[in-house]
Amino acid sequence: MKDLDSLALKVEGGRLRILDQTRLPFAEVWLDGSDPGAMTGHIQRLAVRGAPLIGVAAALSLAAQAEAGASEARLRASWVELRKARPTAVNLMAALDRMKAVLDSGGGTTDLVATAEGIFEEDAALCEALAVHGVGLLAAGETVLTHCNSGGLATAGIGTALGVIRRGFEAGKVAHVFVDETRPLLQGARLTAWELKTLGIPFTLLTDSMAAILLREGRVSRVLVGADRIARNGDFANKVGTYGLAVQARHHGVPFHPVAPWTTVDLACANGAAIPIEARKAEEVRGYGTTLWAPDCEVFNPSFDVTPSALVTSLVLDRGVAAAGSDLAAFTPA
Amino acid sequence: MKDLDSLALKVEGGRLRILDQTRLPFAEVWLDGSDPGAMTGHIQRLAVRGAPLIGVAAALSLAAQAEAGASEARLRASWVELRKARPTAVNLMAALDRMKAVLDSGGGTTDLVATAEGIFEEDAALCEALAVHGVGLLAAGETVLTHCNSGGLATAGIGTALGVIRRGFEAGKVAHVFVDETRPLLQGARLTAWELKTLGIPFTLLTDSMAAILLREGRVSRVLVGADRIARNGDFANKVGTYGLAVQARHHGVPFHPVAPWTTVDLACANGAAIPIEARKAEEVRGYGTTLWAPDCEVFNPSFDVTPSALVTSLVLDRGVAAAGSDLAAFTPA
Repeated sequence: MKDLDSLALKVEGGRLRILDQTRLPFAEVWLDGSDPGAMTGHIQRLAVRGAPLIGVAAALSLAAQAEAGASEARLRASWVELRKARPTAVNLMAALDRMKAVLDSGGGTTDLVATAEGIFEEDAALCEALAVHGVGLLAAGETVLTHCNSGGLATAGIGTALGVIRRGFEAGKVAHVFVDETRPLLQGARLTAWELKTLGIPFTLLTDSMAAILLREGRVSRVLVGADRIARNGDFANKVGTYGLAVQARHHGVPFHPVAPWTTVDLACANGAAIPIEARKAEEVRGYGTTLWAPDCEVFNPSFDVTPSALVTSLVLDRGVAAAGSDLAAFTPA
Repeated sequence: MKDLDSLALKVEGGRLRILDQTRLPFAEVWLDGSDPGAMTGHIQRLAVRGAPLIGVAAALSLAAQAEAGASEARLRASWVELRKARPTAVNLMAALDRMKAVLDSGGGTTDLVATAEGIFEEDAALCEALAVHGVGLLAAGETVLTHCNSGGLATAGIGTALGVIRRGFEAGKVAHVFVDETRPLLQGARLTAWELKTLGIPFTLLTDSMAAILLREGRVSRVLVGADRIARNGDFANKVGTYGLAVQARHHGVPFHPVAPWTTVDLACANGAAIPIEARKAEEVRGYGTTLWAPDCEVFNPSFDVTPSALVTSLVLDRGVAAAGSDLAAFTPA
């Protein structure tokens, strides 16, 4: 494999390494990703996360296993395991299906490596295309609120929603960013805050429960979020908390946009009701990491929620901006 | 002082003790509350919390200091200090103003003690009156969502919103409770969960960002919350997150009620804009307790938010149920 470089995934001298995002913002620990079994574990415990990035990471890990001389049978077994790692993220399945197509057509190691490298490079290019369309929506001096992490830690490029914010800041259109901490796993507090601080973009951190105050006070001009899966009708799944935020944005008349590459669109899902939502373990709600603060009790812990397209102003895709409520199967870029 | 007994405050043999609520749910540690200087510290760091309870605790601590032989000058200095401990809670000021009236009219230790004991007993009786009116609103089989802690840990009695839930459960009207964890200080996860578990009332814990999903799925029949201050027009301040929840309840057509004694009503506040909101320190949002997960950064951390009466279905007061949008100065119980 050739060398590849992004904020949270690198290939150096044929060795695939991923940044352990569970250790941010206080430590930068790099993990080996060359073994698909280990990579499946990294994905499940969110060491590598972000819908686009896990697809890239999974494909590259299969390519690394091929370079290490694994048999086709072993590669196919790894494929099955990787594909089950996160049930909601359609990018993972799309990336892995491209790798399987290479195997099915009799391709060898060179073809698998070229395909995985292509998935990486396409993802970086998609981010830039998203930013072009997203920045086109922005007026001067916008104050953008975002949820979770959809940046360079979630993709092989500058990110989706956070990529728009980054390029918007560089263009002088984004003046300030408000960051939801994003309970239970705190991707906003840990990852987005770290990334914005690293990039020198001014921001304010808040708990998810405080966003409505800023919306009411007119301090947020726009909400930009990522998406893990977009149904044909524009309903989309994203990190839990996105739906409640969309309700609040609508109540206050603040524009609300998911930002995601076309690979996130699943035309086989007619609407949001068809998107599977994984439930995660109780300890994530009872505390954080090894710190527990709630007694042993029943919890509600869906990893994602679904925002109906009725609450969306428009969808920012790499192909262009899609009107809310339109049939994405018929989407034609302007 | 005579012996007094509640979930989080006791007088035994003339000694005032308060339960350190920052140590719940895993340890039950009782602190001495007989010194007003120490009590001011307990209130500020939320060891004793809940708008009604801090008023009771502050009054009893002044009475204890009087019993210990403090001079009038020292009692007046303690009064000034206690009154500044939490700027938003009107109950604290109301309770302390009653103690000052005793001093101003030349009352002695016996009068101060009797007044403080009366404040305790009135608060317990107010909770029962609130429960009567609140339970009157409930249908059979209700599933109630609540935020923060408004129970026996927040009052000298069974609580406000949680007292309604408790008596409603005992009456067979409340089938299940959903509890917002209530970031940043996690009063729902730590205190309400502990209290409901102790009482044997079935409940489910969730992050604040998940409530909207339950509301959309029709799994919440009613939202009951406490209030720290109610303006004359029915706008009210409560723990941060209440306003966003009210917006979500309205969007989904779910009834939403603050539950609070008349002592919480501040007729001098014409509307919510006149209610002062304290900003708290950044570390509360950057982490929890001694655990930090966000980098050093700017945070937004108001302790309370204001919900406009337009989002309220009706207000549950100990005097009766007040229609939303009515002038509380003209409220006449049915």
